[in-house]
Amino acid sequence: MIKITFPDNTVKEFEAGISGLDIARNLSNRLAKEVLSITVNDNIWDITRPINEDASIKLHTWNDEEGKHAFWHSSAHLMAEALEALYSGVKFGIGPAIDMGFYYDVDLGEDRMLTDKDLPKIEQKMLELARTKNEYTRRDVTKAEALEFFDSKDEGYKVELINDLDDGTISFYQQGNFTDLCRGPHLPNTSYIKAIKINSIAGAYWRGDETRKQLTRVYGITFPKKKYLDEYVVMMEEAKKRDHRKLGKEMELFTFSQNVGQGMPLWLPKGAQLRESLETFLKRVQKQFGYEQIITPHIGNINLYKTSGHYDKYGEDSFQAIQTPQEGEEYLLKPMNCPHHCEVYKFKPRSYKDLPIRFAEFGTVYRYEQSGELHGLTRVRSFTQDDAHLFCTPDQLKEEFKKVIDIIFIIFKALNFTEYTAQVSLRDKEKSSKYIGSDENWDKAEKAIIEAADEKGLNTVVEYGEAAFYGPKLDFMIKDAIGRKWQLGTIQVDYNLPERFELEYVGSDNQKHRPIMIHRAPFGSMERFVAVLIEHTGGKFPLWLTPEQTVIMPISEKYNDYAKKVLNSLNNSDIRAVLDDRNEKIGRKIRDNELKKIPYLLIVGEKEAQENTISVRRQGEGDMGTMQISEFAELINKEVEGQMSSIANY
Amino acid sequence: MIKITFPDNTVKEFEAGISGLDIARNLSNRLAKEVLSITVNDNIWDITRPINEDASIKLHTWNDEEGKHAFWHSSAHLMAEALEALYSGVKFGIGPAIDMGFYYDVDLGEDRMLTDKDLPKIEQKMLELARTKNEYTRRDVTKAEALEFFDSKDEGYKVELINDLDDGTISFYQQGNFTDLCRGPHLPNTSYIKAIKINSIAGAYWRGDETRKQLTRVYGITFPKKKYLDEYVVMMEEAKKRDHRKLGKEMELFTFSQNVGQGMPLWLPKGAQLRESLETFLKRVQKQFGYEQIITPHIGNINLYKTSGHYDKYGEDSFQAIQTPQEGEEYLLKPMNCPHHCEVYKFKPRSYKDLPIRFAEFGTVYRYEQSGELHGLTRVRSFTQDDAHLFCTPDQLKEEFKKVIDIIFIIFKALNFTEYTAQVSLRDKEKSSKYIGSDENWDKAEKAIIEAADEKGLNTVVEYGEAAFYGPKLDFMIKDAIGRKWQLGTIQVDYNLPERFELEYVGSDNQKHRPIMIHRAPFGSMERFVAVLIEHTGGKFPLWLTPEQTVIMPISEKYNDYAKKVLNSLNNSDIRAVLDDRNEKIGRKIRDNELKKIPYLLIVGEKEAQENTISVRRQGEGDMGTMQISEFAELINKEVEGQMSSIANY
Repeated sequence: MIKITFPDNTVKEFEAGISGLDIARNLSNRLAKEVLSITVNDNIWDITRPINEDASIKLHTWNDEEGKHAFWHSSAHLMAEALEALYSGVKFGIGPAIDMGFYYDVDLGEDRMLTDKDLPKIEQKMLELARTKNEYTRRDVTKAEALEFFDSKDEGYKVELINDLDDGTISFYQQGNFTDLCRGPHLPNTSYIKAIKINSIAGAYWRGDETRKQLTRVYGITFPKKKYLDEYVVMMEEAKKRDHRKLGKEMELFTFSQNVGQGMPLWLPKGAQLRESLETFLKRVQKQFGYEQIITPHIGNINLYKTSGHYDKYGEDSFQAIQTPQEGEEYLLKPMNCPHHCEVYKFKPRSYKDLPIRFAEFGTVYRYEQSGELHGLTRVRSFTQDDAHLFCTPDQLKEEFKKVIDIIFIIFKALNFTEYTAQVSLRDKEKSSKYIGSDENWDKAEKAIIEAADEKGLNTVVEYGEAAFYGPKLDFMIKDAIGRKWQLGTIQVDYNLPERFELEYVGSDNQKHRPIMIHRAPFGSMERFVAVLIEHTGGKFPLWLTPEQTVIMPISEKYNDYAKKVLNSLNNSDIRAVLDDRNEKIGRKIRDNELKKIPYLLIVGEKEAQENTISVRRQGEGDMGTMQISEFAELINKEVEGQMSSIANY
Repeated sequence: MIKITFPDNTVKEFEAGISGLDIARNLSNRLAKEVLSITVNDNIWDITRPINEDASIKLHTWNDEEGKHAFWHSSAHLMAEALEALYSGVKFGIGPAIDMGFYYDVDLGEDRMLTDKDLPKIEQKMLELARTKNEYTRRDVTKAEALEFFDSKDEGYKVELINDLDDGTISFYQQGNFTDLCRGPHLPNTSYIKAIKINSIAGAYWRGDETRKQLTRVYGITFPKKKYLDEYVVMMEEAKKRDHRKLGKEMELFTFSQNVGQGMPLWLPKGAQLRESLETFLKRVQKQFGYEQIITPHIGNINLYKTSGHYDKYGEDSFQAIQTPQEGEEYLLKPMNCPHHCEVYKFKPRSYKDLPIRFAEFGTVYRYEQSGELHGLTRVRSFTQDDAHLFCTPDQLKEEFKKVIDIIFIIFKALNFTEYTAQVSLRDKEKSSKYIGSDENWDKAEKAIIEAADEKGLNTVVEYGEAAFYGPKLDFMIKDAIGRKWQLGTIQVDYNLPERFELEYVGSDNQKHRPIMIHRAPFGSMERFVAVLIEHTGGKFPLWLTPEQTVIMPISEKYNDYAKKVLNSLNNSDIRAVLDDRNEKIGRKIRDNELKKIPYLLIVGEKEAQENTISVRRQGEGDMGTMQISEFAELINKEVEGQMSSIANY
């Protein structure tokens, strides 16, 4: 008999050799149907693999990343089998599960190319193979066996991969006619896979190396129920409509220029206005919470980053050093704002009475990404962090954490993110040598985070061993309007930089102490956040934020002068108004401006000009009747104030 | 007889061989006493040099740069004579006139060093020599003669200089026992120099080359009247008090860190607040004038700057190119924002109906300066321009110029710069091949600038031949509170970049046209402008701008809680208030906060806490009695509004 410890710390005894699937069956039939993989101690296993010793376990279903991962990884193997059946002689690279589905990189040989038209054929073949209910069987092999097997099949990519592996660590998985080099875990058999969508084809260099051969990457996604696929298709279509790259272009929020450089957004007037509104809002909130804005340059001496350790992390893989024409200095584009903020902290001696100190900066940082990795505003080479660094004593940590959580709540509320989860990442106490900072400080910090999250009523998942080596952290994950999850908002404790920069304060004991540093960026970056916001709102931003709150549309050129008068009057009331004085019919103007997602449309003609009024339409709600200009200004300003005060009163 | 043309285009006849001094005498005895140099056609001459042919002339006095230049250049020679008399064997480098005075680089030989204690001795010797009324006499010499002369005196530096000169271009000037290699012009004799101040000593590498010998640079200034020296001494003392580097440190506005990099300011919280207030103010004004803010990255592909021509100008002498770890791209830190703005212009087709387009950005640019050239915020390596680029048709140029002048006037008014001059720089029509753009466009642009300046009632000096090759411009020069002049605000027409970037708009004729571009930066850069502002105001910024408008001082710790209540209440009324809750006597708090130049000091104690009031002191004006908090908030907000509205109503 062996002892199996469950996540809730209950312990049950089973016969040695019991599998995850058996354990699930023992718990409930329903669970047995849903379980997809199992964590045994620290490793994720097939649910059919026998457990022979005492172990802590966790069962994973479709609701867990680990469950989905096994499902999609098995699906990648199934697709490979289908591809081999359809395209004889195809050679295989790698085929992992990813965030949403899986892919396989394949070499179809000279003269053979896949197009979108081939995708349904692959889906069909996969469905056919899935129905055969072939088992995924695992087999440990020696390195020599592995090499011989793939060499005999002329699978050069696999041979290359095996050559990099250590003997004794290698396993094969087989289902039907297809055998793959693979660590697993996998589903028990192919019949779990009920619904399949092969999404797209792309080129990908072998091992990401542009000097090697370009393979064909085939992306797909699969589901255990047909219903999930239907929901996915609807969601993807909605996502396509909300794609921030598409909307960003249509709404003229941002653009890119190859001449300036890929991955470096140019913020167009409306996008810059949107960003400024967000920044002004956050500055106001942060001021209430005692933050001080600072401004630092976008480069720093290379030694600054050697001190901070960022040179080791980014030096070789990011933008290279900038030489000076004389004096032999070297600078780096800053990949992080923290070293600069440490220097600002150090500009004068600090006392415990000065703490906490909270330096905030909308600091633009530069990090190189391969061009193939770039994606709209979510993956860029230049981005502006809504960064702040708090310097405090250990005793102040909890209070500071609670305040940062408050700020994040205010932001979520202001932008209608109603669903979110939070994760606390703590250290693995058994590997304490991995971490910098005393055990005492870690205990204090971890306790502070957990208590802060608790006192703020946060539903958190606690993950042990997920902390950075320099401190524990708290991450927020939001769900957008169509159910996608985005990571936003990190609060990170740091014992490392204060040490490296020798930051100090004089305590009440008149001795020198190291402050603790907290990094936090509720938006993360302005670029990524605006992308999320566009996709969340579909471009219909809240009134307080939207770059154009209202548009004035004269029904003919005769009323352009009056329309301009209205425009000036509204601008003077701090309303972001624009004029549509194109020589177009009013119906066309209304349609165009509704497409632009402008909340209030104002029509002016004979009657309005005579009576000094405007006719008001609310986007999506229609006619609101005729108003005085001042009455309308008040309406808008009240609506904005209402949004703001409900936020402030959080 | 020869014809002499005066600046006002009147022509007089004189006998050939007449000198500038004679011409002045002919005009008035007073002028004869005051004239210091003369421009003859395009060259500046000694006033004793005979004029033998028809010429256009301009006489220069102490009020002209050219007059001061001759005066100070002659003074450098006089100082050299004094140094030779005092320190036999001294060898001479170069000794030019500079903006305020002159210097001479000298080699005193091994083992001899000057200290500040030597300066009065040099002044005395110079005064003594000045009184001898020795004439400055000019002599043209051949290169061989020049070399022989200085070689015989063992003046190696001069020999090196002569070796670089062409034969036939060399002249000597002699006064008393001192002869120098010199182009001139000089004063008639030493007795013009009535008052002398030798200011300081510094080290300077021969020819600015750090591999060569370090010479001793002696700085001095001289005057034609003792009174001017007295005024200068007073001004210098006042300037020392107002030195923005000193005040910037005391007021905690900005700092520098060698670890980040020299010449790259770190804006501390109060400085960042000051800068933000200036930016918000300018953004508001610019919005009224139809500008649109954009945001662009701080680097650009090297090809962008090859297209713009900036690579030719900055490429080798500024921060070097940034390589990428893969993909072989090269980027430059941007030395200018214009290329990025051209790319934003190009992001979609433009019609004449869209023009003028006005893109504004507070864009941080990076230019390498030698560390020895760096100076506080006025000469830095990173600075943020209050940049904008206007794109318009030729017909819109005048109106756009007038609007930019209005913006500059609003700024001058907001910041109490009451004295300023403006210079229009036009092309030299006789060298039209030097300039890009058609003659027709130049004529139109020059006319537009002159008329715009005229219609705005500007007193301008027109300088021919001072335009950039790519367009005419208008510069503003302000006088600060202690009489120093600073160049601020440039409006520059540009025909070049639209050509290089192939910018276009479709005209009403349905044909493609090139827009004209206007560069303008009223502040110039935030760094330089803040430096000027600190020196102009001595740190006493106008209420609307000052980072800390008021400080709340509890008379003892007992009233800290009430003080915090007052603080919150004021912050909620958008007043920038701080708390001084140090454990210090109230007298000390008042003194310290007056030194910090905070306009309103608020005292709270027993009575105030009970009555929910504050006792108000105005900096420099004393007690204003007791007020309700709301009453005081209204007072401040009204004062700020008053300042703002008087600006807006300009």
